[in-house]
Amino acid sequence: MELEPIKVGLLGLGTVGAGCVNLLKDNAEEIERRAGRKIQITHAAVRDLSKERPCDTSGIRMTANPMEVVEDPEVKVVLELIGGDEEAFDLVMAAIDSGKHVVTANKHLIALRGNEIFAAADEKDRVVHFEAAVAGGIPIIRAIREGLAANTIEWLAGIINGTGNYILTQMSNEGETFADALAEAQRLGYAEADPTFDVEGIDAAHKLAILASIAFGIPLSFDKISTDGISKIADEEIQFAEEMGYRIKHLGIARRNDRGVELRVHPTLVSDQALLASVEGEKNAVMVYGDAVGPTVYYGAGAGAGPTASAVIADLIDIVRIVSADASGRVPHLAFQPDQLSESPIVDSDDFFCGHYFRIQVADEPGVMARITGLLAQFGVSIEHILQKDPENAGDDALVIIVTKPVREGLLMQALEHIQQEAFAREGTVHLRVAQFDD
Amino acid sequence: MELEPIKVGLLGLGTVGAGCVNLLKDNAEEIERRAGRKIQITHAAVRDLSKERPCDTSGIRMTANPMEVVEDPEVKVVLELIGGDEEAFDLVMAAIDSGKHVVTANKHLIALRGNEIFAAADEKDRVVHFEAAVAGGIPIIRAIREGLAANTIEWLAGIINGTGNYILTQMSNEGETFADALAEAQRLGYAEADPTFDVEGIDAAHKLAILASIAFGIPLSFDKISTDGISKIADEEIQFAEEMGYRIKHLGIARRNDRGVELRVHPTLVSDQALLASVEGEKNAVMVYGDAVGPTVYYGAGAGAGPTASAVIADLIDIVRIVSADASGRVPHLAFQPDQLSESPIVDSDDFFCGHYFRIQVADEPGVMARITGLLAQFGVSIEHILQKDPENAGDDALVIIVTKPVREGLLMQALEHIQQEAFAREGTVHLRVAQFDD
Repeated sequence: MELEPIKVGLLGLGTVGAGCVNLLKDNAEEIERRAGRKIQITHAAVRDLSKERPCDTSGIRMTANPMEVVEDPEVKVVLELIGGDEEAFDLVMAAIDSGKHVVTANKHLIALRGNEIFAAADEKDRVVHFEAAVAGGIPIIRAIREGLAANTIEWLAGIINGTGNYILTQMSNEGETFADALAEAQRLGYAEADPTFDVEGIDAAHKLAILASIAFGIPLSFDKISTDGISKIADEEIQFAEEMGYRIKHLGIARRNDRGVELRVHPTLVSDQALLASVEGEKNAVMVYGDAVGPTVYYGAGAGAGPTASAVIADLIDIVRIVSADASGRVPHLAFQPDQLSESPIVDSDDFFCGHYFRIQVADEPGVMARITGLLAQFGVSIEHILQKDPENAGDDALVIIVTKPVREGLLMQALEHIQQEAFAREGTVHLRVAQFDD
Repeated sequence: MELEPIKVGLLGLGTVGAGCVNLLKDNAEEIERRAGRKIQITHAAVRDLSKERPCDTSGIRMTANPMEVVEDPEVKVVLELIGGDEEAFDLVMAAIDSGKHVVTANKHLIALRGNEIFAAADEKDRVVHFEAAVAGGIPIIRAIREGLAANTIEWLAGIINGTGNYILTQMSNEGETFADALAEAQRLGYAEADPTFDVEGIDAAHKLAILASIAFGIPLSFDKISTDGISKIADEEIQFAEEMGYRIKHLGIARRNDRGVELRVHPTLVSDQALLASVEGEKNAVMVYGDAVGPTVYYGAGAGAGPTASAVIADLIDIVRIVSADASGRVPHLAFQPDQLSESPIVDSDDFFCGHYFRIQVADEPGVMARITGLLAQFGVSIEHILQKDPENAGDDALVIIVTKPVREGLLMQALEHIQQEAFAREGTVHLRVAQFDD
């Protein structure tokens, strides 16, 4: 028996809202295979009805009055994507009051008013999900709340403001001053015209309040966080720190100590060997230390339309499963509904596509390199790196080591077979694959 | 109204089983605050009843007959921790048949027999959870299945066998041969006496089958995976690869290409700049690329009693919530049940505990360094690094830059205040904090 589509209302149709509409459309089939039910955005509130939207709004009733969406009896779930902590608060409370579940990406709102919102939601037996509020697309809320639920969390530390991390990375890698790096971030759209929330640590403190609460089981405590920004970091500090083996990162840290819980956001020296030190540019990462599991790290994009929509729609799928409350509403064992597993062909290794490394022992004579590279070219294999190791004693064999660009494996193997049939080639060619992660 | 405790049966009480018993006991209070209900292990099956167990077994009925546990009408959830794919399969099927939910850490079982097990579980409306089967304590199943549910997963690549990664790390960092590194791993208990499953990639292929299935929505396809081990990796390869800017990692890779799905486990060259290249020793990490979210990485301990128990008990908590099927059975908004949030004190910055960096401008005169270090010692502040930057022109000021060991911040600030009151000290001291992640 097919369940009817879940109808969803949208508050705000800016970058993130449009990202959600596009994602639900682009991945409609996969999402339905996972959720067991169609999801339709049917009603959206925007401030300016005449503005062009970067998404297909056909089938969506548009209004300038957000209360219409919140009170629409057809709408089961409201996505709050307008930001801020005043109008958003009133709308979320009204949505809960009229029986809607809510998904929000609004860290400011949750950090400051979450205690009231969750009390209202629990009272009305509604769900308010907020995965996108912290670290964008990284499923860090789920990881701590569910994945590490058996642990006493000892501490967590995160790069949870991409703008700040971008600025510090530019200062460190390019030797830029804070002012230049900030201007660059603004030009690229990573920083707002008024960058206070990002560079003074307020945005990071919003997120830290949320992480600390779910990690330690304490009420949201934004106003108790000790917060320092990065605006006063001089280039010299970055340089001195590097001389001593550190990188400076803007971290949010929550830690139990024997007197209570430390909550702090500040520029921090981190050993350049630590995983967090290698988180560059606008990326986010959170390290969580649980007493049973030890250290775990979660890394990814902390902002942007795609990553934020990824988290918002994951929350929505979770609510769809809760709403479809019978057994079929559970998370399926293999992620997709059992009758929706597809028989995608598992390809033969000839059809693998990646780079290759091979080391071949050859006679040390003229023309060998030309012949090898010629054969590779003949089969369409391009070379990325080449090393030649000449023999120590004249008359001994040489080694040729080649890393290729990504290529269909069947072609590489054919080229290699031809190379091995040459008179100059010895036995014992070593072949390995190369991975290139195009992030 | 308080719900009565959930009773749990245990199959196997080795390292992981005992880890689960210990974890449920050590974190009983926190776990109950999260799950909303007490959890009791009441019945356990072991092969040898006379053997001493590294956990408190009081209150647990012990039997040598696992079918007794599986058929115990009081038991609601069975934890299968005996391993292997034959007896374990029969027991899990019997448990499902008698209406139990199941948690298993057994990748071998899920990879080979999961399709049958999940069909039986769906038929009987039972849950089979298996977070611990892949990458130990890292909540990677949840991350892909729920956290990234809105994405079309393009590819994933993981270091999912800690033994192999330990061996490759030793070869790379210590210049050991494969044979020496393997012997070392066996001595440390990372590798079994028969290391075939680890070093030939079979264990990694079990895990890859599971990851690929939940990422792509395909049936478990262990027998279609192209699998190469690391036993033939020579030291020279590691060295040649490093010369060209790569590290060799044993990866499990699942990737869509235009002909289907690539499933492969093999030693792989990875750019030494990539995050996966910096995953060392017996640690695991999985990189997942979703079309909306982009690349995300999940890092942590892939094996061991604590990390595995962390994942098993998280699954158990999830099932407890499902079993307690009313609204209170949902994951609470702030991870802990609303009436269970604690008012842990948020400490003042004087009580923060971490290392500190400061840069102070001083007159270039004798005795300054002795006075600074003397004042630090007086307040119990130990020095980790010290840099002195002499002036370029005689008569100008010098700079002293100090990184301290972790200390209560109040003490550091007092020492710093005293230093600043000295006649040699100039205005404008820079103070930053240092994080040390003790993993």
